[in-house]
Amino acid sequence: MHRLLDDLMLKELDNNILREKKDSAILKIGNRKIAFTTDSYVVSPIFFPGGDIGSLAVYGTVNDLAVCGAKPLFISLGLIIEEGLDKFILEKIIKSVKGAAINADVEVVTGDTKVVEKGSCDKIFINTSGIGEIYYDGLSAECIKIGDKVIASGPLGDHAISVLSKREGIQFGTTVRSDSAPLNGLIRKILKASRKVRFMRDPTRGGLGTTLNEIAGGRNFGISLDERAIPVREGVRQASELLGIDPLYLACEGRVIVIAAREYEGRALSVMRRDKYGKMAKCIGEVSADHKGRVYMKTSGGGKRPLEMLSGEQLPRIC
Amino acid sequence: MHRLLDDLMLKELDNNILREKKDSAILKIGNRKIAFTTDSYVVSPIFFPGGDIGSLAVYGTVNDLAVCGAKPLFISLGLIIEEGLDKFILEKIIKSVKGAAINADVEVVTGDTKVVEKGSCDKIFINTSGIGEIYYDGLSAECIKIGDKVIASGPLGDHAISVLSKREGIQFGTTVRSDSAPLNGLIRKILKASRKVRFMRDPTRGGLGTTLNEIAGGRNFGISLDERAIPVREGVRQASELLGIDPLYLACEGRVIVIAAREYEGRALSVMRRDKYGKMAKCIGEVSADHKGRVYMKTSGGGKRPLEMLSGEQLPRIC
Repeated sequence: MHRLLDDLMLKELDNNILREKKDSAILKIGNRKIAFTTDSYVVSPIFFPGGDIGSLAVYGTVNDLAVCGAKPLFISLGLIIEEGLDKFILEKIIKSVKGAAINADVEVVTGDTKVVEKGSCDKIFINTSGIGEIYYDGLSAECIKIGDKVIASGPLGDHAISVLSKREGIQFGTTVRSDSAPLNGLIRKILKASRKVRFMRDPTRGGLGTTLNEIAGGRNFGISLDERAIPVREGVRQASELLGIDPLYLACEGRVIVIAAREYEGRALSVMRRDKYGKMAKCIGEVSADHKGRVYMKTSGGGKRPLEMLSGEQLPRIC
Repeated sequence: MHRLLDDLMLKELDNNILREKKDSAILKIGNRKIAFTTDSYVVSPIFFPGGDIGSLAVYGTVNDLAVCGAKPLFISLGLIIEEGLDKFILEKIIKSVKGAAINADVEVVTGDTKVVEKGSCDKIFINTSGIGEIYYDGLSAECIKIGDKVIASGPLGDHAISVLSKREGIQFGTTVRSDSAPLNGLIRKILKASRKVRFMRDPTRGGLGTTLNEIAGGRNFGISLDERAIPVREGVRQASELLGIDPLYLACEGRVIVIAAREYEGRALSVMRRDKYGKMAKCIGEVSADHKGRVYMKTSGGGKRPLEMLSGEQLPRIC
């Protein structure tokens, strides 16, 4: 259904800005360039280990701006609330929005609230849109060159497993906490350290597998990953096995995938590892001349397998 | 519940921009001023005489920008869709968004879609956020002076009655069609014709009564209306009587209330009446030194009565 929708939107609302399919639209206002993005959050449950729908809605939009080289400035907050939702739950969510806005150094400047009858929405849905000012221009998948390095800022899949475990009531040895976090500070440090960053993306919907396939798809290069290098927590690995899902397709909400020039790898990693949201950053692969348009993985067993676009439906209501 | 929410949002997210409680936040990007606004649309039914949730979502946000003296430029589109919603309905709504964006001369530049399980939302909810560039600075309720004129761009309550009649399955002699329309063109003409416009607002949630009370509330002037001058269609009057509601509290989605200097009244009316969305514009009252902070109405019977803030809940899911 998601693909159907994306196709429908692109076909009907066709314009140059939408066609770029970036996390944010890049727009000109006077002589300034701004980034503009929107996301609705329907996560269930609304509270999960490491976060809740309020902070998630702020960080998600902040990160969509940040990966485009923008400094996130202003956030809008649209709430759709089911009649009868406990006042204390609502207060907790609004407080979480406030705390997240402070953490991410953005201001919530405009808002809207709609209340619908019981049964017409599931507790609360939140839309945030955001405006940021571009300070690093030119991040684009078009700039990626063969030999570039692919870096992940931290372990993958924590967010999705945190939400899924809570929702399904599954208990593991250790609780996996969502990685939901504002990445604008980390990203600014990376971009300040070098002009050799080609492209960035936060691996949210569809996780690393989907993100990298979208980057390589239709382009004149392939991406080769090293499975042993990809950071996945033990708890996420165990939960994924139990749930029969591949952790490489699980949504993160506080990770960024950075593609940078080969010679910048060491510097990028050291900058990232000094930031609290990049401590476990790792180089996970590189851009290759082989298998153009596709993603391949050197498996830990020594073999090689393609990492395809996820077939079938994505997990519902993870964000 | 709405008031509770507004209070909660203001208390927690307190900042100078939110506190102004305008239809849009006015922000600075470089040396330009922009307006930024958000609205979620949960109207039920999603198709009604004169409009649908798609065009409503575009025009509503366009109008919130326009009444702040901004030229609406960019719109975001966030869809929350109930699983299984008919593809043709969805296509019809997206086409309506597209048509509305063309009519209003704005671009839909970024979007997001979330699908939730059957029963977790009622068909489709749409959030639109918008960015406009301020071209007429200084519209503010603070600028209103005693003696200023209050002008309505057209008949009141058409939108709410159109939605309510469809929802309740009520038939009248004539079908009332929603007034949902983009007002940026009309508003630009009004503002171009004179620098003597003080303030504007589109009487959406809570209609004329709520809008005027919000303008006068806590201020050093009152507003005196002339009931006989207030344009209300016969069909709206009849339906309101049948439903036991006051048309002066019914939401419009294509009307603007203009407060302008007394000497500009004639010019404003003639400019408005030449535009297709202002043909039935009328002066409905004036700003008075009496009953400060309140709205009074000279009734058609020759008496005088206060038009208070609406007590009790507003009609649900009108927009």
